[in-house]
Amino acid sequence: MIIREIRVTPVAFRDPPLLNASGVHQPWALRTVVEVVTDEGLTGLGETYGTLDHLEKVRSVAPALLGLDVHAQNEVYARVSALIGDPPSPSGVPTGERPIDRVYSPFEVACLDIRGKALGRPVADLLGGAVRTAVPFSAYLFYKWAGHPGAPDDRFGEALTPEGLVAQARLLISEYGFRSIKVKGGVFPPEREIEAIHALRAAFPGHPLRLDPNAIWSVETSINVARALDGVLEYLEDPTLGIPGMAEVAAAAPMPLATNMCVVAFEHLPEAIGTGAIRVLLSDHHYWGGLVRSTQLARLCATFGIEVSMHSNSHLGISLAAMTHLAAAVPGVTTACDTHTPWQDGQDVLAAGALRFVDGMVPVPTGPGLGVELDRDALAVMHEQYLKCGITTRDDTSYMRAFDPSFSSRRPRW
Amino acid sequence: MIIREIRVTPVAFRDPPLLNASGVHQPWALRTVVEVVTDEGLTGLGETYGTLDHLEKVRSVAPALLGLDVHAQNEVYARVSALIGDPPSPSGVPTGERPIDRVYSPFEVACLDIRGKALGRPVADLLGGAVRTAVPFSAYLFYKWAGHPGAPDDRFGEALTPEGLVAQARLLISEYGFRSIKVKGGVFPPEREIEAIHALRAAFPGHPLRLDPNAIWSVETSINVARALDGVLEYLEDPTLGIPGMAEVAAAAPMPLATNMCVVAFEHLPEAIGTGAIRVLLSDHHYWGGLVRSTQLARLCATFGIEVSMHSNSHLGISLAAMTHLAAAVPGVTTACDTHTPWQDGQDVLAAGALRFVDGMVPVPTGPGLGVELDRDALAVMHEQYLKCGITTRDDTSYMRAFDPSFSSRRPRW
Repeated sequence: MIIREIRVTPVAFRDPPLLNASGVHQPWALRTVVEVVTDEGLTGLGETYGTLDHLEKVRSVAPALLGLDVHAQNEVYARVSALIGDPPSPSGVPTGERPIDRVYSPFEVACLDIRGKALGRPVADLLGGAVRTAVPFSAYLFYKWAGHPGAPDDRFGEALTPEGLVAQARLLISEYGFRSIKVKGGVFPPEREIEAIHALRAAFPGHPLRLDPNAIWSVETSINVARALDGVLEYLEDPTLGIPGMAEVAAAAPMPLATNMCVVAFEHLPEAIGTGAIRVLLSDHHYWGGLVRSTQLARLCATFGIEVSMHSNSHLGISLAAMTHLAAAVPGVTTACDTHTPWQDGQDVLAAGALRFVDGMVPVPTGPGLGVELDRDALAVMHEQYLKCGITTRDDTSYMRAFDPSFSSRRPRW
Repeated sequence: MIIREIRVTPVAFRDPPLLNASGVHQPWALRTVVEVVTDEGLTGLGETYGTLDHLEKVRSVAPALLGLDVHAQNEVYARVSALIGDPPSPSGVPTGERPIDRVYSPFEVACLDIRGKALGRPVADLLGGAVRTAVPFSAYLFYKWAGHPGAPDDRFGEALTPEGLVAQARLLISEYGFRSIKVKGGVFPPEREIEAIHALRAAFPGHPLRLDPNAIWSVETSINVARALDGVLEYLEDPTLGIPGMAEVAAAAPMPLATNMCVVAFEHLPEAIGTGAIRVLLSDHHYWGGLVRSTQLARLCATFGIEVSMHSNSHLGISLAAMTHLAAAVPGVTTACDTHTPWQDGQDVLAAGALRFVDGMVPVPTGPGLGVELDRDALAVMHEQYLKCGITTRDDTSYMRAFDPSFSSRRPRW
């Protein structure tokens, strides 16, 4: 099972104007599709970020992996490590994610896909076996404009008020059946977002609620918001920047704090654990170095009483499949994971039908490997879109400033 | 790859009168061989403890695993868990080892053996791939009598003095090529064992040295010994009992402390890490719940700057093969692991030749699975020995008291 060929294809897909603390999503979201092909003709799929600096790193390591067996993951990692070195976190990523782990991840997922296909077993079986037949995801609400400036409104419509968010939640829940709700906050002054959470609580009394302002608040503001939402939130995600600040908030907040910003690599865990900064880790195999390392992370978290759930950036179906297999095979993942899937609104590089939502959950694919197949026509179309869209990196802040030159993503803003 | 049959066979093999803090090894050492057979006729091997209470637990869970796929390890663990519950640590084990993990381990190893055989790949490939072609082990020295009382002397002879230990080291090193030396201490007053370590240092100036008194010293004695051996020991293993005591010693000792006694389950790690009690964890897949969990343990330890090496009890070749695959696949295992192999003196349930020592290292088997095969005749002979030897549990203390009624294994003794 020797790696003979690796294809790296950047793609772009339409993304609605979703607001967050850094600005607003650009009209196109970027991803990179990695195909690993073995001497036996098996192809494995991986998906990762599409920003140019990352894409170039992924392309640069691919030739060094040719000739390796798909099982030789320690060696794959070592070669990625040797080529990527230990540069600072990528620009535009306000956290300490490790470039090595970001680059390694899609290759690891693709190799697991190949191993599963060779065996005729789902990837979950290579991670200890599925303990659930479907993985719950949450309705991921965003404040948003009705459409990108200068373009027609999208079908999701405007959401800038509590009523707008409630309407959005109704739409996503009616279409997907979600049973948990996560709100991307950090867009408006905290009082306004507190009001929105209360409106959602009233409209959906049985749905666990989460709020994620992407670390845009001061410690003091974070504590005030936490107290104002006592008994309302399942957890509060990344209210403020950095482990010391999170620890201060955690000591005063009535609900658990979750993160995908202050703990994004193994080296961050000792300080976060030592200071009691977090009680929920939103893991993400795209920057934690793939699926097996994510299971190791889950064991570590369980050891220290930290719950594990799952973070999401804009992604396509390959990532959704990988996330589903992983979440299915980690017994401790019991709350709904995040996904941006609804915002991709049917666009995908996969043949339709392999992944679906039933009552807010994705049934774990039972076919070999990830259980999904590439739609080559769709891949070609989305690669064309990448070439034509004129976007090569993610920059929510500059895009926002095109419409509001005074916009600042400085933290803390409130 | 469904489990259709499980055979559980207790065996006994001759063991020399090796002295330790608990007493002296009985004339027979016990182990249990687990064979898991699939619907496709593949057989996987596991090896575990042979004491009766453990044997009965292993036998009691086996029927519950029939019908499961060998990949369904989360489910195998869940069923073991449900049947074993959470009883206190086994009698005779002065540590907090978890019975669930002890019972689960041989089944997990056997399932990995099957998966490797089905794939035609070594077990190391299922753990991330070997990063070394051979695994170094240490010369494991014991104070010992010339032979069991009433029986002829064994070929290793007496070792009750520094000169005796040096001679024993020369024998083991000449036969196996070991490049590190570990001394099982806790037998004589500390001054006498310090003298022995200095004699070994003089005789083997290039061999890293370790001393393991099995937690028989007080904190004060431990600190005194540590200071007396400053610059001589690679690490000091389990000088005193319990994490708080180990932390006190660690704060004053000039060398790292290692353990296989105060941290023997994931739940012990938070306190040990929080108090800085250990810098080396001697892992052991027999009680850490198998090979995959051991790789998770290794990741956790690496995260917190704790080095991982490997502990050993009296064992046979199946365990040596499993230890070798694991150590080969964990990049951080760079120092010599422990093994009792020389004391088994050629007795084994395996066909000869699959495992060998070259320059103190075991070449990682490259055949499918563990890369070893059962010798059914040898298994039958060793099972007969089990039935006839009259020993059903390990009790070094009672055996010692048969010759020295005043013997006490009370800790601390010194």
